[in-house]
Amino acid sequence: MKDPVIVTDIVRSPLDAVQALAKHGTATVHEAMGRVGLPGPQFRPIQNGAHIAGNAVTVFSWPGDNLMIHAAIEQVEPGDVLVVTTNSPSTDGMFGELFATALQVRGVRGLVTEAGVRDVADLRDMGFAVWSTAISAQGTVKSTPGAVNIPITLGNVTVSPGDVVVADDDGVVIVPRGDVEATLAACSARLDKEAASREAFRNGQLGLDRYNLRPLLDSLGVRYVTQADYLAEDR
Amino acid sequence: MKDPVIVTDIVRSPLDAVQALAKHGTATVHEAMGRVGLPGPQFRPIQNGAHIAGNAVTVFSWPGDNLMIHAAIEQVEPGDVLVVTTNSPSTDGMFGELFATALQVRGVRGLVTEAGVRDVADLRDMGFAVWSTAISAQGTVKSTPGAVNIPITLGNVTVSPGDVVVADDDGVVIVPRGDVEATLAACSARLDKEAASREAFRNGQLGLDRYNLRPLLDSLGVRYVTQADYLAEDR
Amino acid sequence: MKDPVIVTDIVRSPLDAVQALAKHGTATVHEAMGRVGLPGPQFRPIQNGAHIAGNAVTVFSWPGDNLMIHAAIEQVEPGDVLVVTTNSPSTDGMFGELFATALQVRGVRGLVTEAGVRDVADLRDMGFAVWSTAISAQGTVKSTPGAVNIPITLGNVTVSPGDVVVADDDGVVIVPRGDVEATLAACSARLDKEAASREAFRNGQLGLDRYNLRPLLDSLGVRYVTQADYLAEDR
Amino acid sequence: MKDPVIVTDIVRSPLDAVQALAKHGTATVHEAMGRVGLPGPQFRPIQNGAHIAGNAVTVFSWPGDNLMIHAAIEQVEPGDVLVVTTNSPSTDGMFGELFATALQVRGVRGLVTEAGVRDVADLRDMGFAVWSTAISAQGTVKSTPGAVNIPITLGNVTVSPGDVVVADDDGVVIVPRGDVEATLAACSARLDKEAASREAFRNGQLGLDRYNLRPLLDSLGVRYVTQADYLAEDR
Amino acid sequence: MKDPVIVTDIVRSPLDAVQALAKHGTATVHEAMGRVGLPGPQFRPIQNGAHIAGNAVTVFSWPGDNLMIHAAIEQVEPGDVLVVTTNSPSTDGMFGELFATALQVRGVRGLVTEAGVRDVADLRDMGFAVWSTAISAQGTVKSTPGAVNIPITLGNVTVSPGDVVVADDDGVVIVPRGDVEATLAACSARLDKEAASREAFRNGQLGLDRYNLRPLLDSLGVRYVTQADYLAEDR
Amino acid sequence: MKDPVIVTDIVRSPLDAVQALAKHGTATVHEAMGRVGLPGPQFRPIQNGAHIAGNAVTVFSWPGDNLMIHAAIEQVEPGDVLVVTTNSPSTDGMFGELFATALQVRGVRGLVTEAGVRDVADLRDMGFAVWSTAISAQGTVKSTPGAVNIPITLGNVTVSPGDVVVADDDGVVIVPRGDVEATLAACSARLDKEAASREAFRNGQLGLDRYNLRPLLDSLGVRYVTQADYLAEDR
Repeated sequence: MKDPVIVTDIVRSPLDAVQALAKHGTATVHEAMGRVGLPGPQFRPIQNGAHIAGNAVTVFSWPGDNLMIHAAIEQVEPGDVLVVTTNSPSTDGMFGELFATALQVRGVRGLVTEAGVRDVADLRDMGFAVWSTAISAQGTVKSTPGAVNIPITLGNVTVSPGDVVVADDDGVVIVPRGDVEATLAACSARLDKEAASREAFRNGQLGLDRYNLRPLLDSLGVRYVTQADYLAEDR
Repeated sequence: MKDPVIVTDIVRSPLDAVQALAKHGTATVHEAMGRVGLPGPQFRPIQNGAHIAGNAVTVFSWPGDNLMIHAAIEQVEPGDVLVVTTNSPSTDGMFGELFATALQVRGVRGLVTEAGVRDVADLRDMGFAVWSTAISAQGTVKSTPGAVNIPITLGNVTVSPGDVVVADDDGVVIVPRGDVEATLAACSARLDKEAASREAFRNGQLGLDRYNLRPLLDSLGVRYVTQADYLAEDR
Repeated sequence: MKDPVIVTDIVRSPLDAVQALAKHGTATVHEAMGRVGLPGPQFRPIQNGAHIAGNAVTVFSWPGDNLMIHAAIEQVEPGDVLVVTTNSPSTDGMFGELFATALQVRGVRGLVTEAGVRDVADLRDMGFAVWSTAISAQGTVKSTPGAVNIPITLGNVTVSPGDVVVADDDGVVIVPRGDVEATLAACSARLDKEAASREAFRNGQLGLDRYNLRPLLDSLGVRYVTQADYLAEDR
Repeated sequence: MKDPVIVTDIVRSPLDAVQALAKHGTATVHEAMGRVGLPGPQFRPIQNGAHIAGNAVTVFSWPGDNLMIHAAIEQVEPGDVLVVTTNSPSTDGMFGELFATALQVRGVRGLVTEAGVRDVADLRDMGFAVWSTAISAQGTVKSTPGAVNIPITLGNVTVSPGDVVVADDDGVVIVPRGDVEATLAACSARLDKEAASREAFRNGQLGLDRYNLRPLLDSLGVRYVTQADYLAEDR
Repeated sequence: MKDPVIVTDIVRSPLDAVQALAKHGTATVHEAMGRVGLPGPQFRPIQNGAHIAGNAVTVFSWPGDNLMIHAAIEQVEPGDVLVVTTNSPSTDGMFGELFATALQVRGVRGLVTEAGVRDVADLRDMGFAVWSTAISAQGTVKSTPGAVNIPITLGNVTVSPGDVVVADDDGVVIVPRGDVEATLAACSARLDKEAASREAFRNGQLGLDRYNLRPLLDSLGVRYVTQADYLAEDR
Repeated sequence: MKDPVIVTDIVRSPLDAVQALAKHGTATVHEAMGRVGLPGPQFRPIQNGAHIAGNAVTVFSWPGDNLMIHAAIEQVEPGDVLVVTTNSPSTDGMFGELFATALQVRGVRGLVTEAGVRDVADLRDMGFAVWSTAISAQGTVKSTPGAVNIPITLGNVTVSPGDVVVADDDGVVIVPRGDVEATLAACSARLDKEAASREAFRNGQLGLDRYNLRPLLDSLGVRYVTQADYLAEDR
């Protein structure tokens, strides 16, 4: 059962591997992991162009209550990303510029939250990267216990402390700590393949030919017909 | 019962107080009011960086019908903000560049609407600030009566003519006319407090200490545990 | 019944007419058509300021499957816009930078999709214009047959191959191929009328007078009342 | 500004008028009021066939917190309906069978809430009528102050204590206390008119003729055309 | 371009074929058509257990306006189903018991609407079947032209007058008039196949064996592993 | 990384404990677990009055593809509940009466799915209990690999094979296998407490007194004021 605990001394993923993941986008990382790890399209950046990766410090909060974010800030280290969820749906602006100030001086790279944020103009000016499910000026209280650094569910994925959060304009992807090395290797392989495809496509090759899809289309019963013949068919 | 009326000669909030509210953001104003006044996160700006305040001129329209906006334009004064709602949900683009032209020459500072807007590229170019619940090219008719300058409900708040509308990148907040002075005073007090907190956070203080939250966490039964011990617990 | 077909040799709208439509925005085109042709406000641009028009090449896909987009690329010509839908709701990022590369070298002007896209930072950098209903890093497979260049339903409109897609910051509008000339003529008439109204509004005229709405308000029973009298009424 | 108050000794609408409104459905009452008073279609009954009316006792709560409902129960009288909202969106099941037990022994007729309820099987068995925006087993705390019997916003309407809540399978409508008598009179007039229309329609009359709509259609430019001619038109 | 027309003398599908389709559910008809024809899951029945089929009489209305429904009633025949849409999203209760009375005496079998309905308790009592996207007491006006019996878009499908509407607890499916016979034949073939599968499943056969899916799983790389071995794998 | 695996020989929770949990509702179980375990209010029953519990057999599918459900049926045992999710959002009716037939003969108690179901009239007639996020006739293919009996995310919770699924009219709650005994004990303690409260409330006691909330209200600054005084305050 879920205790009201603040878990300290968490094991993190190594920062050089985290950095290497940051260079790959979320799409590449997601593909490299076998098409998993996405919390969902409801997590949107409040800024354009940010692309980060960091170790997850997780926060489990009551809706309308930011008490546990205060507790979490004591637990962060440089290279972390704060990951916040509430135990039922909330759009409240439970995070703003003051929290970002405290995190930025500690070297935290950003926030991912399944709730709202506010002071977004300030956050953009500060260069503190945020992905959230809502923007709202709605304030919160500090009244109800929660937890820090326990495994949480963020949209459709589970996030444990020390997992790697990768985020960019396409959204967010979570890489379990134990999968970081294998994911990196798969990313590199994928990048090489994509570079070759990009070059081929620039030179006019078709995906139909590059990926040998014509036999597949044929075996699936897809037929070619001119528009004139198509419109003439009895339908 | 709701009459089809156009109310003239409305009492407004004084423009110097409105200007002073404009300098505070929606988050500060909302907090200063006791955490009320927000119509909800569905009201989004069509532009980045605009922050305005003005006296509300209210419009109650039929969905798909912009007749009453025409009637409202005759009632505006410099420093006003047009606030439009429909009597049932609508995403129609009932406001565009021509309306904005007519309002801008009259000194109106922006629009807040629980419906759609269109010509958003033009509106951005003109610097006419808009917060809406949708963007849609869908046009409207001029066929059905409504009302101007009666109290309306905008999302989750009631707006009376002459109330102050404050809007920025975080959304919209409504300050009842009678609360303007008290809200301004509370904003100033809050700003001072926030500036001190910002400075403290920049210097590394924790919110846990600044707001004396450790005894609260303790009284709520929140305990600290290392990850090693946490994982070893029988769960 | 819906065959798995790839229709070739489609008849397109003439490119000079397409170009002329591109100069009118979606709002003007929609009005000129008699207020139809909008798939709905859920189609949003991933970039600001793009405004395009092109001949529709249509793709009907299975959710989570981009096989038919590969097939469609062989069918495009310069001046086309790819229009993609799935046969049930999907937010998957079934289109990204590699597809855009292949389309851009073929002179395609953009994508409209009732599903998700990814690599949006790259797409913005490339200047490849996209309107979609979601942004998601979620990858797809190539396993299930669909169709290319059959009539499809996009939001609330039907799109046939060769129809003209017009898209800008306000969203998307579809002009049936047979209506292109008449729509263009109506757009021009409308533009002249709007320019006159814009000038009049800049000079302070009211829509109430310009459109002769005062008799209409009167016939609808809308009455004028001062706020003092309104508040004094027994209500 | 919103105080944390519990307002006692509220003025209610007379119960015989409330009873009379209960006999009219929400649609009739809404029409009689001039097509206002609806909080919106998101308020759905958890049961079929219930139709009630009662005096509103209002509760303003924090999301995830049912403390103020406890406070409200002391303020109810027979013939009341509890009306609960939260100050930001919430789906939590903040009301269940124990609350209903306490209200039922006090003669309260039902609950309308802009949040979730639980124990719906028990509530149906008890015959305690509920309209809510969600059903969820999610539990709540008792930690944060709110208010009882202040004016609140419920969906798109304002509810003051002592206003009449009418609810049935079509949803909920709010009649301001001061409008009860006029609304009742308008309902009766409307019922007579509807009974006559119903009889006429049963006898085969068309609304086109009964409401004299043919001249309107004609003046709006609506023309009749056979399908054969319509399909033959150049389009 | 969309005219304000009322199209008369439409060609319908033969009623015996319509009746035969009524016996098949929407799922069977949809499969028989090649998995198309569904407007989407947002169309929900207001009652349980109704299953109907009928010829579509189509109505294109302005949001918040039921004028064209009055016009449509003159065009119905026994065995029809009224299909109503609005030209932009609406939840208004534009259809209720009086309209149902007029339709029921004319032998109309039900309503499908991409908008709201009201008087649902009465509609259930009358046995008039309805599928809608909302339930709302919100009333409407009769002010704006639309069309009757033109092709409309209903959710994600196009409906032409005389197409067959099939509706049951699973939702709604549209069969184009020209596809009725082929669909019926495919339904029958499908029913036989399903009956055999049902019997086989009752007797314990697995779909894996009945549909020969084991080689497919194998070719897709799906492997079997015991939980003990799975948990022991390095992951 | 997520393999395409079918995990066999899973460890289940003991059926007598499962049965005991079935007697408690989801609200009680959720509270007993410390207010966790709820996937969210989007999981709705297709029937009224069903309340079940069973061991989870988990299925991870591609959207629009039911291949892995076939594979899962071979893995079920009496007392199981099938739990299905897709790796991106889907409303497709990937489960119907034929699957239910195969599961019912194997003693499976129901289905919980983060996707759509169809044949709901048949499923109700068969007494096969279902909780889903959509109802849709949309059919699916059998083309893409997934997994059976791996840990999956269902809404906002993680479900591992052998966890206990409890479901009733309030929705669904997941009890991790390791928490079953402790949850049962907590449920019993809670039931006794609730029975005492119910009796007290029937006898007219207030929650304010029973839970000693008056001092809390006082300490939170909540004050009592008559409506006459409240309205007289300067606000």
